[in-house]
Amino acid sequence: MTPDFNIQAPNPSLRGAIAQKIDNLNKPKGSLGVLEDLALQVALAQQTLHPQLCHPCHLLLGADHGIEREGVSVSPRCVTWQQMLNFTRGGGGVNMFCRQHGFKLSIVDVGVDYDFAPGCGIIDRKIAHGTQNFLHGPAMTTEQFDCALTVGVDFVDAFHRDGCNILAIGEMGIANTSPSSIWMSQLCHIPLEQCIGAGAGLDSKGISHKRDVLQAALQNYQNSQQHDLPTLLRYFGGFEMVAAIGAMLRAAELHLIILIDGFIMTACALATIEWHPEARHYMVFAHVGDESGHRAMLNYLNVRPLLALGMRLGEGTGALCAYPIVESAVNMINEMDNFSHANITKYF
Amino acid sequence: MTPDFNIQAPNPSLRGAIAQKIDNLNKPKGSLGVLEDLALQVALAQQTLHPQLCHPCHLLLGADHGIEREGVSVSPRCVTWQQMLNFTRGGGGVNMFCRQHGFKLSIVDVGVDYDFAPGCGIIDRKIAHGTQNFLHGPAMTTEQFDCALTVGVDFVDAFHRDGCNILAIGEMGIANTSPSSIWMSQLCHIPLEQCIGAGAGLDSKGISHKRDVLQAALQNYQNSQQHDLPTLLRYFGGFEMVAAIGAMLRAAELHLIILIDGFIMTACALATIEWHPEARHYMVFAHVGDESGHRAMLNYLNVRPLLALGMRLGEGTGALCAYPIVESAVNMINEMDNFSHANITKYF
Repeated sequence: MTPDFNIQAPNPSLRGAIAQKIDNLNKPKGSLGVLEDLALQVALAQQTLHPQLCHPCHLLLGADHGIEREGVSVSPRCVTWQQMLNFTRGGGGVNMFCRQHGFKLSIVDVGVDYDFAPGCGIIDRKIAHGTQNFLHGPAMTTEQFDCALTVGVDFVDAFHRDGCNILAIGEMGIANTSPSSIWMSQLCHIPLEQCIGAGAGLDSKGISHKRDVLQAALQNYQNSQQHDLPTLLRYFGGFEMVAAIGAMLRAAELHLIILIDGFIMTACALATIEWHPEARHYMVFAHVGDESGHRAMLNYLNVRPLLALGMRLGEGTGALCAYPIVESAVNMINEMDNFSHANITKYF
Repeated sequence: MTPDFNIQAPNPSLRGAIAQKIDNLNKPKGSLGVLEDLALQVALAQQTLHPQLCHPCHLLLGADHGIEREGVSVSPRCVTWQQMLNFTRGGGGVNMFCRQHGFKLSIVDVGVDYDFAPGCGIIDRKIAHGTQNFLHGPAMTTEQFDCALTVGVDFVDAFHRDGCNILAIGEMGIANTSPSSIWMSQLCHIPLEQCIGAGAGLDSKGISHKRDVLQAALQNYQNSQQHDLPTLLRYFGGFEMVAAIGAMLRAAELHLIILIDGFIMTACALATIEWHPEARHYMVFAHVGDESGHRAMLNYLNVRPLLALGMRLGEGTGALCAYPIVESAVNMINEMDNFSHANITKYF
């Protein structure tokens, strides 16, 4: 059964008091820019004048994609499991940044096409050995869709029980820019060719092939019966992507802050917001990468990401790199003196 | 006597080996974007394949400006000393971010128009109670100029002796966007009116008055005898700004990384590079703020700052907020597995 979500915008009654607290800090009004907006967002989400970031968690979801069989990615499918194992050894991009910023890392197999040895450090929530090839039909069944959502929900519930109130989500899934491009095109009403990029490094011939494959897949989908949002998501989505949506929805329900980065996670955030618009209040858009279409998707959502460092590694690395900025915002509202206390001539 | 500086670009012979190490890390080539460029810069500056960031220091320089008497700033002169004292109590923006990122903070009076009590936590290197009003003549004498440079040199020498290899510089000086605008105009050959902004919050009438005052001051300068770089700097500069230039020059000489932010510090970096072009190799441009002209100055220098968070507080807060990005770059080159070690199918 599809999990239920009851997602509410933060109660706005504290907004005035939070904004006043920020304005009365010892600085010209607005002079800490985005940090002030962030502090307001986090304080509102947490419904307090004294927000805290507690027990940050990083959920790294891995799965394979049937569409990889069509040669839409520069990397072969085996890189998914190789990288998942590498993450357990601490040598991936995601590992460094989790260590740097104190994130607890959970590495979860939602559908990798490989049988990991028990005890290898990867949490087994495998739904199947990859999705079906969506060129010929839906990537997953409705039961599999519900299972994938539930994986995300379960992890966020566990993080929340441990005291976590801020979450980053990363993905590892060769070929997962393909479903992301299709979701983007359908949800933002942007022609498919403007949603397709180089992924991890396709050349122009590769991009052209990817476009033809995705165009054909979309044609098949449009000839099919149902076009509601869950159908779009399960027809093209990867298990790791649907699990990420489940995690975002549950995190929003529990008023956790969600750090969003990358093309794939932004496509998942887009789907999440399409499903439950109030979820956006809990999202912090962390980084805009170089994948063509990522910025267009952020523009559609009318958000400005914290960082633009040209990263395109995935794994949630952009989300992790933005974490200290959110910490700075929270430090600001808690630690900065206000004018009356500091005995400073208020500037204006 | 003006201090001597012997500034060399980093020896390029290691460049190939560093670039190869970065390219062979376990990620698609270039996929960590700006972090890769930063890692190369820091490793080259330190002449090693294993760069480290040690004992970060923040030099906060305060001074008053004679031009403040012309009403070019929204804040009165007394805010300089009030804020300096506030920094000693830990409640300023700079304090929070120094604590967050482990920077040792030195608060230095180079020329504040106030007599601080001994032992208040402010280091006394006062040259005068503010500069002269440059509407009517040079802001400082050549002796004062040399003294201010020496203050910066002395602090960087002390930091370096303590093992520091990365430095941020901040300023507190009501009205110091005015000399910065003039330096920018003269050094970038951009008309003065395009270099003048709202400072800490002037309205359009205030900006128009500021423009008239600076235009008149520039006219007087142009009617004077000498127009070489040191003359330009001492004619308009503040003691804190010239001390910052001294610090940047000495840091570059010692191959320290210098974090640059803000309109005023970018104007000082511009002057530093104009004087000793090789100093630019040691500078990391941390943040672009909202002060009109800041982005134009960065474009002139052909650099892209790490952050664009709309901050305009000064004090070096943007430099401090960017520090974890530099840390991430250094973590990447040191901690990330390479392909051969990780047994990953190399993508391309």
